[in-house]
Amino acid sequence: MLVVMRHGATPDQVAGVARAIEDMGYRARPMPGAQRTAVGLVGNDGRVDESRLVGLEGVLRVIHVTQPYKQVSREWSPEDTVIELPNGVRVGGEDVVIMAGPCAVESREQILETAHRVAAAGATVLRGGAFKPRTSPYSFQGLGEEGLRLLAEAREATGLAVVTEAVEPDGVAMVAEHADIVQVGARNMQNYALLRAVGRAGKPVLLKRGLSATVKELLLAAEYIMIEGNPQIMLCERGVRSFDTHARNLLDLTAVVSIKELSHLPTVADPSHGTGARSKVGPMARAAVAAGADAIILEVHPDPAAAASDGQQSLTLDQFDALMLELDAISGVLGRGIARAPAVVHG
Amino acid sequence: MLVVMRHGATPDQVAGVARAIEDMGYRARPMPGAQRTAVGLVGNDGRVDESRLVGLEGVLRVIHVTQPYKQVSREWSPEDTVIELPNGVRVGGEDVVIMAGPCAVESREQILETAHRVAAAGATVLRGGAFKPRTSPYSFQGLGEEGLRLLAEAREATGLAVVTEAVEPDGVAMVAEHADIVQVGARNMQNYALLRAVGRAGKPVLLKRGLSATVKELLLAAEYIMIEGNPQIMLCERGVRSFDTHARNLLDLTAVVSIKELSHLPTVADPSHGTGARSKVGPMARAAVAAGADAIILEVHPDPAAAASDGQQSLTLDQFDALMLELDAISGVLGRGIARAPAVVHG
Amino acid sequence: MLVVMRHGATPDQVAGVARAIEDMGYRARPMPGAQRTAVGLVGNDGRVDESRLVGLEGVLRVIHVTQPYKQVSREWSPEDTVIELPNGVRVGGEDVVIMAGPCAVESREQILETAHRVAAAGATVLRGGAFKPRTSPYSFQGLGEEGLRLLAEAREATGLAVVTEAVEPDGVAMVAEHADIVQVGARNMQNYALLRAVGRAGKPVLLKRGLSATVKELLLAAEYIMIEGNPQIMLCERGVRSFDTHARNLLDLTAVVSIKELSHLPTVADPSHGTGARSKVGPMARAAVAAGADAIILEVHPDPAAAASDGQQSLTLDQFDALMLELDAISGVLGRGIARAPAVVHG
Amino acid sequence: MLVVMRHGATPDQVAGVARAIEDMGYRARPMPGAQRTAVGLVGNDGRVDESRLVGLEGVLRVIHVTQPYKQVSREWSPEDTVIELPNGVRVGGEDVVIMAGPCAVESREQILETAHRVAAAGATVLRGGAFKPRTSPYSFQGLGEEGLRLLAEAREATGLAVVTEAVEPDGVAMVAEHADIVQVGARNMQNYALLRAVGRAGKPVLLKRGLSATVKELLLAAEYIMIEGNPQIMLCERGVRSFDTHARNLLDLTAVVSIKELSHLPTVADPSHGTGARSKVGPMARAAVAAGADAIILEVHPDPAAAASDGQQSLTLDQFDALMLELDAISGVLGRGIARAPAVVHG
Repeated sequence: MLVVMRHGATPDQVAGVARAIEDMGYRARPMPGAQRTAVGLVGNDGRVDESRLVGLEGVLRVIHVTQPYKQVSREWSPEDTVIELPNGVRVGGEDVVIMAGPCAVESREQILETAHRVAAAGATVLRGGAFKPRTSPYSFQGLGEEGLRLLAEAREATGLAVVTEAVEPDGVAMVAEHADIVQVGARNMQNYALLRAVGRAGKPVLLKRGLSATVKELLLAAEYIMIEGNPQIMLCERGVRSFDTHARNLLDLTAVVSIKELSHLPTVADPSHGTGARSKVGPMARAAVAAGADAIILEVHPDPAAAASDGQQSLTLDQFDALMLELDAISGVLGRGIARAPAVVHG
Repeated sequence: MLVVMRHGATPDQVAGVARAIEDMGYRARPMPGAQRTAVGLVGNDGRVDESRLVGLEGVLRVIHVTQPYKQVSREWSPEDTVIELPNGVRVGGEDVVIMAGPCAVESREQILETAHRVAAAGATVLRGGAFKPRTSPYSFQGLGEEGLRLLAEAREATGLAVVTEAVEPDGVAMVAEHADIVQVGARNMQNYALLRAVGRAGKPVLLKRGLSATVKELLLAAEYIMIEGNPQIMLCERGVRSFDTHARNLLDLTAVVSIKELSHLPTVADPSHGTGARSKVGPMARAAVAAGADAIILEVHPDPAAAASDGQQSLTLDQFDALMLELDAISGVLGRGIARAPAVVHG
Repeated sequence: MLVVMRHGATPDQVAGVARAIEDMGYRARPMPGAQRTAVGLVGNDGRVDESRLVGLEGVLRVIHVTQPYKQVSREWSPEDTVIELPNGVRVGGEDVVIMAGPCAVESREQILETAHRVAAAGATVLRGGAFKPRTSPYSFQGLGEEGLRLLAEAREATGLAVVTEAVEPDGVAMVAEHADIVQVGARNMQNYALLRAVGRAGKPVLLKRGLSATVKELLLAAEYIMIEGNPQIMLCERGVRSFDTHARNLLDLTAVVSIKELSHLPTVADPSHGTGARSKVGPMARAAVAAGADAIILEVHPDPAAAASDGQQSLTLDQFDALMLELDAISGVLGRGIARAPAVVHG
Repeated sequence: MLVVMRHGATPDQVAGVARAIEDMGYRARPMPGAQRTAVGLVGNDGRVDESRLVGLEGVLRVIHVTQPYKQVSREWSPEDTVIELPNGVRVGGEDVVIMAGPCAVESREQILETAHRVAAAGATVLRGGAFKPRTSPYSFQGLGEEGLRLLAEAREATGLAVVTEAVEPDGVAMVAEHADIVQVGARNMQNYALLRAVGRAGKPVLLKRGLSATVKELLLAAEYIMIEGNPQIMLCERGVRSFDTHARNLLDLTAVVSIKELSHLPTVADPSHGTGARSKVGPMARAAVAAGADAIILEVHPDPAAAASDGQQSLTLDQFDALMLELDAISGVLGRGIARAPAVVHG
């Protein structure tokens, strides 16, 4: 950490900064320059709270040299984390994992039909919302526990692992009981009580990037989960907010590359929420695999026009079949394949 | 609501849209145009879920004519909502309410000294965090319940009302017991479980705009609170995320004006978080009063350099005194004053 | 176009809007609704200036049903535009065109070595800046006309077509004399005098999206060029400005898909400027091909560490060779190949 | 400047960075830290081009301690620049200058009526576009030279100074001949040929911030003008692009404060373009004065509903009269007044 002093800061002010640094238990190293002095903080263990220093007299700004996250960083653990799911699929390993299913669980028929079809096409994880956080209180909010039971039934029938969202700390245990992966949605990326709860639940977590969260904030959110003792975290890019409306969100695929450089955790891309339009999902799913994502999560619905939510961005079952062939071929170019699971009846 | 068809949409597709609208219980009114057809949805009561329509064949996009929020809108209630606090101060009325105090409650001495001084200078509400949501798990997270007790003690000593944040649904009851206003922070603006909990707590709510929330989303978040039966909501602009780093956030004062046009609820501006730098707080507090905010919330600390959090944006007690004179004069230009409370020992 | 009236607008105000529409030469169609009235404007030929209507009494807002651009739209010309360069390469056709070269032309040796190597690896267009618009007046601004001559010499030596930037209207003729494609840079996307000048120059144009331009604004900028009589325009996504700094810009690959849906013009992606970091260029170049871009433009330098500008995002010659194999394979998955030119000595 | 090395960078890589710094004529100061080494660059005169360093092996990133602009900075010239216009009005001095007039000059009657009325209400500068850069080529583009002559006639009749926009380098001389202040619009903030041309024209310049330009980029654009020998530059905040559409742009009033801290140049705020809606212009004009802007530029039109452009954001003449009283009172709170000019017939 580097504390940059204002032009014309007095020796007393520089000494005051050095004293504050030493009070915090670190070493201070003043560096006089041609135009201004800077004071280095040596020994930063990633826990320094800059606000103590920013407010001191004569200070212009504080520059971080070391990142504030620790356990999620690649420097902490140089080797890629691989998460093995109960059905034997490995996320973050050699092969690309496909997660697919409807936005929301709507009925037994809907979820079972979708599960069988996506399994046959090569998916290994079934997605589907039982609890839906919605911007408007008047929108459909999910089937709740009944939805969780239907997902578990679909798992039994197909061998797919199940990922579904928990929306409040008190609901984590129930979700964790039925799901193989607990999802934390974009709106809840900085819901710290929820992060701690999923950190303690002992199940793999799919953490979605907030709508305007930086990659650094996403990694710090993962750090909240990890320090509870749960290292099984997948980091999901799902589009950020933008000034343009040509698509619902702006899918930041470069973040997949950045996360992989900064962290050892597996990456997931969500082109369905990331684009918000069926016609754009296929191209961006292909792009996500080409960019190196470890997993792709896709909305698929047997009858998108009748979907209770997000119908406009759901692929049809036939579109999903066709897309899987392309994703398989592109992953092959990168020396990967589409992950298969022994327990799943693939087509 | 207007469903715009693609150029070249077939009569069958137009009829399909009309049928879907009627299935949902509304009337459809097709409007053939020079280049394309649009289908109007008549009878929208604010509860139409557009996703049913967006996915239909031949549909280009859906345009909202009516806003999706209802009870928070000015059309629902043309008259301004005025919220009366236990100490007699009215938020949203003729006068401008000043809320002031430290970012976090740190000690008995700190909160009492601050409370006496801001009361003397004309504040009527004391702010101070007992539970602090922080981006990094390694940052100071607040004193918890002990902080709430210290705030209550400061209220007894000064007559100030107390505003403090609740960070999870299970914690709302405890906060509501000690506070006069329950704050929902920016990171939790779309934490729906928390919104519902504060909606049921029966205390006035200060709802902060999310870091990249639109005004429409802020109003929908307020709608979540209001439909639980709690209409006492203040909407707070506290800066949004931007591409520039000349200030910590981008304080969107125009939102204060927009909210007032769209909603009957009182508006609050937070120039401390909105700018993140002490030297910018005063000018932007003046600007917020000039723009018409009903209340201003300010971070003030007896010794900002020693603050446990956000020291760089806290005013000193002397700076606060000086600023209050300016805010009083500017509110006078708008035919308002600074709200006083009989129970508070103002200077 | 739909003019939405305020709740409670008077019949006189509605009539005033209808009158204004008819004054402008269109037909007005009032549509009374449950909560508010809207007035449709029928006969919109894409030239309606909404500002006449927005300011009328009782008007809430104006909604565009038809897009404001015309000749660049896919509705104007449903078939893809294909631009044939002098060396026989076709941009926008079946195959993916690779444009490569240094950020700036620095010396005869540098540009010739780069040209021979990228040609051997399969590129068909040589990029290189002779005039460099730079944020700081103290940064290197390019070799100017000497740079153009070196590019022309490299074309003679290799058969590559040349793309280079024009930065002011008076300079377009000189650039057009030496280049096969005239580039308009991101900072100049709304420099209308420059757009008109390149529109009249008769050479193909590579138009870069502005740093925070919407896709709609990009299409309108292309419309400025096209109405001068020049339909040979390639639209280039090169990253937009974002709140995050994990990469220099936010490469919006979905825009490639959106542009293709809205317009008949070829699309180009620039992962070098789009990411700003060498380690991210390869993954995002692969992603761009996978998303369907018609051409990729890449910065390549024989010695990036010594580059006069943008060294951090330039690929080495060896990295470029390796990347070309991947891009070829991915284009194959989409039923495309990498475009070759008879005149170029490919490896 | 600080070059931060990657964790695990070799001594050779550190030495390579030091060598590069010394090759550039500066001194290198390696600083080994607990987790990584950084290399300080000492002697930076504001002209260091970081791209040489970013690409070196082992380099993680380059951190700027000194800003890249020089002559526009407050460190270069601690005293405020005051620009005196021909009619005796001083911009950047004690009093707040009001610039007012229509978006575009439309007719002799329109500009003369407006000029007389805004002068009577206390304005000292007349605004009005003769050349209008418009997003769509089909929108009204201004009266051109005829508009300039009408502005000059209005100046003769009222004593107001005139500000109007130049849109291309070749047009600067003509604009400078008729205007007292040459405006560079937001779209052209990085049109360097234009900046150099206005730098050489010898007239005061009103430079508008680009739609998503950082304050630093605005200052660097001003540096382009200043190094041509023209220090008479006013920096105008006019709203930046945002993810929200509750207003046309997001008026960043904090930028007015930031610019004043970083630079000695006068600041201007444009609440008309900054909000895009008549009902929001008054509140934000008051806020801009309260925040400390040296000048306010406002769109005023005798008949906004008939305006050729931007009618929705133009004040009526009566609204302008009323607003001036408020602005006068608020400037008084800050110890300022509204600037008057001896030559102007104020009311």
